[in-house]
Order: sequence, then structure tokens, then C-alpha cells
Amino acid sequence: MIEDKNQEKTGLDQLGEFELIKHLTKNFTLQHKSTIKGIGDDAAVLDFKDKKAVISTDLLIEGVHFDLSYMPLKHLGYKSVMVNLSDIYAMNATATQITVSIAVSNRFPLEALEEFYSGVALACEIYKVDLVGGDTTSSTKGMLVSVTAIGEAEEGNIVYRSGAKPNDLLVVSGDLGGAYCGLQVLEREKEVFKVNPNNQPDLSPYTYIVERQLKPEARRDIKGLLEKLEILPTSMIDISDGLSSEILHLCDKSEVGCNLFEDKIPLDPTVISACEEFKMDSTLVALSGGEDYELLFTIDQKDFPKIKGNPHFTVVGHMTDKGEGVHLISRSNTKIPITAQGWNSFS
Amino acid sequence: MIEDKNQEKTGLDQLGEFELIKHLTKNFTLQHKSTIKGIGDDAAVLDFKDKKAVISTDLLIEGVHFDLSYMPLKHLGYKSVMVNLSDIYAMNATATQITVSIAVSNRFPLEALEEFYSGVALACEIYKVDLVGGDTTSSTKGMLVSVTAIGEAEEGNIVYRSGAKPNDLLVVSGDLGGAYCGLQVLEREKEVFKVNPNNQPDLSPYTYIVERQLKPEARRDIKGLLEKLEILPTSMIDISDGLSSEILHLCDKSEVGCNLFEDKIPLDPTVISACEEFKMDSTLVALSGGEDYELLFTIDQKDFPKIKGNPHFTVVGHMTDKGEGVHLISRSNTKIPITAQGWNSFS
Repeated sequence: MIEDKNQEKTGLDQLGEFELIKHLTKNFTLQHKSTIKGIGDDAAVLDFKDKKAVISTDLLIEGVHFDLSYMPLKHLGYKSVMVNLSDIYAMNATATQITVSIAVSNRFPLEALEEFYSGVALACEIYKVDLVGGDTTSSTKGMLVSVTAIGEAEEGNIVYRSGAKPNDLLVVSGDLGGAYCGLQVLEREKEVFKVNPNNQPDLSPYTYIVERQLKPEARRDIKGLLEKLEILPTSMIDISDGLSSEILHLCDKSEVGCNLFEDKIPLDPTVISACEEFKMDSTLVALSGGEDYELLFTIDQKDFPKIKGNPHFTVVGHMTDKGEGVHLISRSNTKIPITAQGWNSFS
Repeated sequence: MIEDKNQEKTGLDQLGEFELIKHLTKNFTLQHKSTIKGIGDDAAVLDFKDKKAVISTDLLIEGVHFDLSYMPLKHLGYKSVMVNLSDIYAMNATATQITVSIAVSNRFPLEALEEFYSGVALACEIYKVDLVGGDTTSSTKGMLVSVTAIGEAEEGNIVYRSGAKPNDLLVVSGDLGGAYCGLQVLEREKEVFKVNPNNQPDLSPYTYIVERQLKPEARRDIKGLLEKLEILPTSMIDISDGLSSEILHLCDKSEVGCNLFEDKIPLDPTVISACEEFKMDSTLVALSGGEDYELLFTIDQKDFPKIKGNPHFTVVGHMTDKGEGVHLISRSNTKIPITAQGWNSFS
């Protein structure tokens, strides 16, 4: 869309910085009583009353975290919000506000930023969060996005990474590996496009996994689902870097070990077929792929009957004493130590 | 320092992302009771009890907002925090927590990030704020910093941009134009250095203005000073983009006009002499220079006796009816309309 030279575009230098922010945020409405003052002053003012405030922040950099050649800007706006809300949900909290800052080079016209903000607006509407601040500036190269998400929670409901006990069950929401498989499809199509720009790819067999990559949904619903089941997880984390990395975080903070069962890892059929097509090991993809934004949590064994057979949740393992270490129990019943193979932007 | 090839440096790819964060933040201690959980989980948890939370965020981009050829990384870390705390103080709030995210390219060794974080740590110590989160990732080019500052305030004490009334007095803390003059000195020395790298510049006559640029201090003290004087400003903003731009913001949000008196604008003698040396108009520098991080506020006329002669404050003008417009009253008593000439990163 940015490359379409036939449309009239508006240079960012034609608006002042404050006019730009006003223009981009004019359609955002505030939905939370806790938002006393949103955009338009030195800072936003929020009222959490007797609840605790929960804060998380993430940076997304073009060329590192996203590729605009296949990531539409509206999707990028949406995903940038999801990535952060996911952290709030991983505390078993309710996301209430966000701030969104972007820096872009001069190659982006105003219409591109409008696209980005339309994705942010859609996320705000669906996930019921208020945009309360941000910063808009120029970069010397490419685009970058910084989002801070704010949430609220009753103190007793907050779930940390550190509460898992030996014998607790390890549970994951949804299914894993889809986002990474979607990325492989998009990367392949990009290479095809480079050779033949007129090629029209048929992505329909890959709809699910491509959506997992381009338009992930944070698990806002899990808190409510667990409350209905009368389950309070003992520890929780969101899966942004891959299952193995997140298990290691839970084990590290909770000072426990873990046995993860390979045959329990939930995989969508599209993920299995994509792994066959791309000659990837589906377990490795689930362990190290990342960007699934599902929630990984532990529950007391006594809660097992409440969760058994629930289509939203899969028990994938159990926690052990710290000394037993962190292992994958393979389909052939081999015990393989789990090491961090999560995403590292510096390597 | 980054360019000194004789020292042993540690590549960022040698540490994992989480090890890196752990390493960089290991010396930060939490000072606020309101910080229930800092770094180390999906999100920080804060407790504002019956106070309101105040949130502000800013992006700083290398090549746009700072130049590492004369900005030491420790100073950059310090200044990044100051820029954000200034927004919290401009709400008449107490800054309590910050999150700091950075993205750097591979040219930065670990030691460079340690320098940056030592500046953040110094700011946290002096300004009594807790580092409670952030993100550390790689960039494809240069360095960028995103800081979110969080503060707390009693509802009745919060001062917005929108409360100024006609006849209110316009007051500024400290003096103006220093940061911009300091930038001119540093830019000149950079050009000299390009021609003769062995030249040792004598910056001692410029200590004050260079410090204003490289190590600005946010006005944490103003809230307490005003409380002692029993003054609650009717409106307030921090001066990040220059006096003219901030006055226009106050007038816009408060729906008032303003007369600013040129001969009242507080200028340090070093600023006046630097303006002479660089052939700049000192009034224009104060109006449009920016980065002074002083506070600009309005007070009711009845509070004038309390503030008169106070060395921290200067009355520089008064608000008028909206229809009268926003003007600078020059030394020769000419009325000149004030237009926004603040910093715009896109032009």
C-alpha cells in the first residue's frame, strides 16, 4: 500500500507534531471509568481505586520484529497492542489502558500512519482498552513501535511466574506453533514475489497459520474462563518466545522442575501439515517458534477435574522438584533436557 | 568510549536477552511502597491506594533526538529519564516508577549498555523512582530509547493544562534557552573535531549551558516549593519544545489568550553571552529552543505576593481573554503574535 505511487499522499512534514497526534487519535473514545484524563496533557491520569495497577511495555522494530513487505500496517497496529495486552492477561489482570509511541522515517505518508492507528483503534475497541498517551516522532530509518499496556487487578487474583509448586499441572491455552508456521509461509511468498511480482499466491490453505502470525489475538478470555471454573492458577506467563523458554521462566522463578510431554502439546492440523511441507519438526516449532500469545499456567492437581476435557485448555505436563530439572518426555519416552531456544534478537 | 578499540568488549549476542536484562538491572533497588512487583514478571504491579496514577511516555531516537558523538551514554540514560519525569512533575504529581526500553544495533558492546543503565540508575537514585520494567532488543540501525514514567497524586492536587483563567499570571521556573545554546557549542566542537581530532576543546566557559543540554534536571522540587508557598497553579506544562509552543498549548487547552513580556524572560548570563557569540537572538532561543525542562504555569493574581522575589520563579506575563490572542510584548513595546516554532521532528 505504501508503495502505490498513484494515490495522493500527505507528507508528515505538512502537519505539526501535535496536529499529527490530534489527527491520528481523534476517533479514539475512552471507555473506562478509571481513565480520568487521556491524551492531551503532559500525562494521562488514571484511577485504580482499591485495585492494583499492572504495567508492561514492549518495543517492536521494523526489520527485527516485523517486515512491512507482508505485514499490513493495520495488522501491525493491532498486533503491537496484542503483544502488550498478552502480558497483562498473563498476570490474570484486566487490561484497561495503553500508550502507543511510533517513530517513522519520511517514506511513510500520513495515510500509512492512519492505517496503523486504525489497527490500534480496532484492538482498543475489541479488547476494551483506552488509548491514553504516546509519542509520535521521526526515525532515521524504518518504523518502530513502543507500546505500554496498563491493567488492573484485585491483589488476591494476580498470578505471578513464581507460584508453581511440585506436582502442579502445566496447562496451555489454545494451540501452539501456528504463528511460526505462518511466518514461514509469508517468507516463502516474499521470495516468490521477488522473482515474479505478478504471481498471485493462494494462501487459503494457510489462512489459520497466516492469521496467527499477522493478526494474533491475546487471550483476554482466559481470566473469565478460569473464574467460571473456580480455578486460580498458581503461576502464569504468556507464550511470546516459545514454549521451552516460557517453561524455563516459570521453573526459574518458581524454583521447580518440570516434565513436559511431547504427545500432549496441542497442535492445529494446519500446523502439522505446514511442518510436513516445510520439513520442520512440529515439536521444535511449538517449543521454539514463539509469537503464539497463548497463556501457559500451572494449577493445583485438585483442580484437574474442573479443566479436564475443556476445549480451551490442554494439560501438557507437571511440575517437579527443582533437582529433577526441566525435561521434555518424548513420544518414545526419552527424557530430553529443555534448554532455552527462545527468540533472541541479538543473535 | 564506544570507539575505543583497545578495550575488551562483550558482544551482546554472548548473553541471552533475559540474561542481559538481569545483568543490566541487577543493581536497581526498589524504594517505593507502591511498587509491589518490579522487573521479572510479565508486568509490574503497582499500588496507588487512594491516589491517582499519572502516566507519560517518550521516544528518543539516535540521529533525531540525540547525537552519540558528543552525548556520553551515561548522560543519555540520565536525560532519557529526566525528559519523562518532567512530564509527571508538570502534572504536579510525584514520579514513582519508570520503565525503560532500548533497542541497539550490534555495534554497541555490553559495556555501552552498562554505561547507559548507570545513568538511568543515577537518575532513579536522585529522583527516587523505581525501575519496574522495560524491553531490550536489537535495532537494524542506531539506538533508540523509550521511557514510560509513572507517578501518583492526590486528585485535588493534579494540575492540567486547561485551568488557566484570564488575568492569571504566567510563571516560569529557572531560566530558559540554556539547553539550546549548549547544543550550539557541542555542534561547533563536533565540526572542529572532524577537522582536527587532536584538538582539546576548552568548554569551561560553557559549563552551565553544556550541562543544560547533556544533563538536564527535571523540576522535582517545584511541587514542594509551591506547596510551602501555599500556591496551587491553575494550569501547568513542562518546557520541552520552547516557551512559545508551551504557551500556545496552555492557551489552547485553557481557551485563553496571553501577553508574554520579552524583558521578563529569565536568561542566564552564559546564555546571553553565548547568544552574542553565536549571533542568535536570545529571545528567539528562549521561545523556540526547547529542552530546558523547566515548568511553565499560571497562578491566580492573589498569589502574586507569595511568589514575588522568589529566586526560583519569574512572572513573565499574564493570561487574557481568548479573543485578545497570544502575543509577545517586545522591549520596544510592540505586540508580536506568538506562533508555534517548537521542535518538529518531521520538518
